Amino acid sequence: MAAAEVRAAELSAAAVAGDRRALARLLTAVENRTPVAEAALRTLYPQAGRAHLVGITGPPGSGKSTLVAALIAEVRKADRPVAVVAVDPSSPITGGAILGDRVRMQAYAGDRDVFIRSMAARGHAGGLASTTGAACAVLDAAGFDLILIETVGTGQSEVEVASSADTTVVLEAPEMGDEIQAIKAGLLEVADLVVVNKGDRPGAQRTAAQLRAMLVALPAVGANPDAADRPRPKRPEVLITTAATGAGVPELLVALDRHRAAGHAAAASGGANGARLARADAQVRAVLAERVADRLRDPALAGEAAATLRAVADHELDPFAAADRLLAAIGREGHR
Amino acid sequence: MAAAEVRAAELSAAAVAGDRRALARLLTAVENRTPVAEAALRTLYPQAGRAHLVGITGPPGSGKSTLVAALIAEVRKADRPVAVVAVDPSSPITGGAILGDRVRMQAYAGDRDVFIRSMAARGHAGGLASTTGAACAVLDAAGFDLILIETVGTGQSEVEVASSADTTVVLEAPEMGDEIQAIKAGLLEVADLVVVNKGDRPGAQRTAAQLRAMLVALPAVGANPDAADRPRPKRPEVLITTAATGAGVPELLVALDRHRAAGHAAAASGGANGARLARADAQVRAVLAERVADRLRDPALAGEAAATLRAVADHELDPFAAADRLLAAIGREGHR
Repeated sequence: MAAAEVRAAELSAAAVAGDRRALARLLTAVENRTPVAEAALRTLYPQAGRAHLVGITGPPGSGKSTLVAALIAEVRKADRPVAVVAVDPSSPITGGAILGDRVRMQAYAGDRDVFIRSMAARGHAGGLASTTGAACAVLDAAGFDLILIETVGTGQSEVEVASSADTTVVLEAPEMGDEIQAIKAGLLEVADLVVVNKGDRPGAQRTAAQLRAMLVALPAVGANPDAADRPRPKRPEVLITTAATGAGVPELLVALDRHRAAGHAAAASGGANGARLARADAQVRAVLAERVADRLRDPALAGEAAATLRAVADHELDPFAAADRLLAAIGREGHR
Repeated sequence: MAAAEVRAAELSAAAVAGDRRALARLLTAVENRTPVAEAALRTLYPQAGRAHLVGITGPPGSGKSTLVAALIAEVRKADRPVAVVAVDPSSPITGGAILGDRVRMQAYAGDRDVFIRSMAARGHAGGLASTTGAACAVLDAAGFDLILIETVGTGQSEVEVASSADTTVVLEAPEMGDEIQAIKAGLLEVADLVVVNKGDRPGAQRTAAQLRAMLVALPAVGANPDAADRPRPKRPEVLITTAATGAGVPELLVALDRHRAAGHAAAASGGANGARLARADAQVRAVLAERVADRLRDPALAGEAAATLRAVADHELDPFAAADRLLAAIGREGHR
């Protein structure tokens, strides 16, 4: 057995048995896409699939991390375990800490049924959804029944991450700027639940009414062909919360549980689970892309791959001819 | 010759000859990744490679579109043609218009040397960088010597789009919120030039000083291994503009031209052009991913692909085993 597999087996067994340090190490491996991560996921993936994945997204300033902290408090009242994956798009290079009140979460430092993890958006685009999906599978196998995925909802990849959760919550705040308002329209299309946070501010009721009006105007099922197989049984509910005081948070948790139950009911009657298929698709696509990249890095092909890319960079070769040349080379090598 | 190729040849010839409607149609084809786009790019790509691609990014509210409008005005004073590709991440489904003052650009509706195009961030992540790259190649072949790529700098894919330009300008505004400040740190790592816009506001000088201090703290060459071959000859300059009045905009254009000249000098002395290689890589990767997806949609494989994805969604199969199974199937079909 290779060293990576031995290490993966050790870490996986420990993480499933409740060792939080082992879990943290596995998540680091997943984030860095190491061989240990691949070996561990092969083992853990079949043990996952039970958790409720809740995406929480919204524009900067809508109070996502405060709401996540309030949700954790609410979930813990019922003694349920909860994990948070905070997807941090702030830095493609060094990572970074986006959430000013991550500090609040320090309150749970001694509570082993709360696990909070930031993931930097490293590497190539498209990897974000698959890395997050893999991290959720690990947390799921480790027994976390509710996983909150927090993303800043302003980029395409963050929207994808949020919308591949079982339930997608889009957060808004009263009186946001014009540009933010425009961003919101795109986000609403992926929402299962819409939450107007900072509900104690003037204009919260008016913002909620505006959002309800916008939601009526949206097509009931998205115009996106990729999303067409994702059932949207009804228009998203609009809730009002004040995360800072906890007002409205119990109602939000009830709505989340209700959405989960509705998903289970749909699955039991044989409906395709669009969110799960989307997650599977993102993960398989990412692995396929990595496998193709790995083969191109193979010594037998690396020289040809580098020369081909350079020719494209110099505009001597178009990207289609280049891709076809590389794909043919991979096929050739694969059949030696 | 296939119909798509005939149409592509017509549109390409017309676009290169200066027909703006043909150019607009080609860009729509590129955005929708149609067969016409592929055929056209095969012809046009070798004719491109001369334009200066300038990425302009920054958080919502930093005044990107106002600055773009001011830059257009400045460039037109010198009678140079300029194109703008505004990447709009607001909606994965319907697209949308993010820029409140897109209206300003209506001023150039009669000027055929100004071409402005919004691109929605459709389709899968990672496609954004390649679609933008392809659009720039078309505009480049059509004779636009300066192409401004405007993105909202809050998502990973938008950062990638911006940083695959020849010159990346990161915009900031004085007195932005905490969360925005954190996003900024990640953006600075990809900047060739940093601009503090809204320079007439109190605190602009102080913000510029803070940014200079942050830039000193950054590694001179990024810690990202993917970016290691991208030369950063020196620390980014920090400029102050007031786009609404045009103050500082002539100096910005001088700085852009200087950065372009420095890139040419580096290329002439045999240095690898990291930005161009990154663009080529994004485009070839996107085509490779599409080719793989196409083969999986082929009737001979579609059933196996769907069953495999469903097994992953049901956690009966892990994503690695699924990808390897599909890759083997593609190889088998490719050699029939």
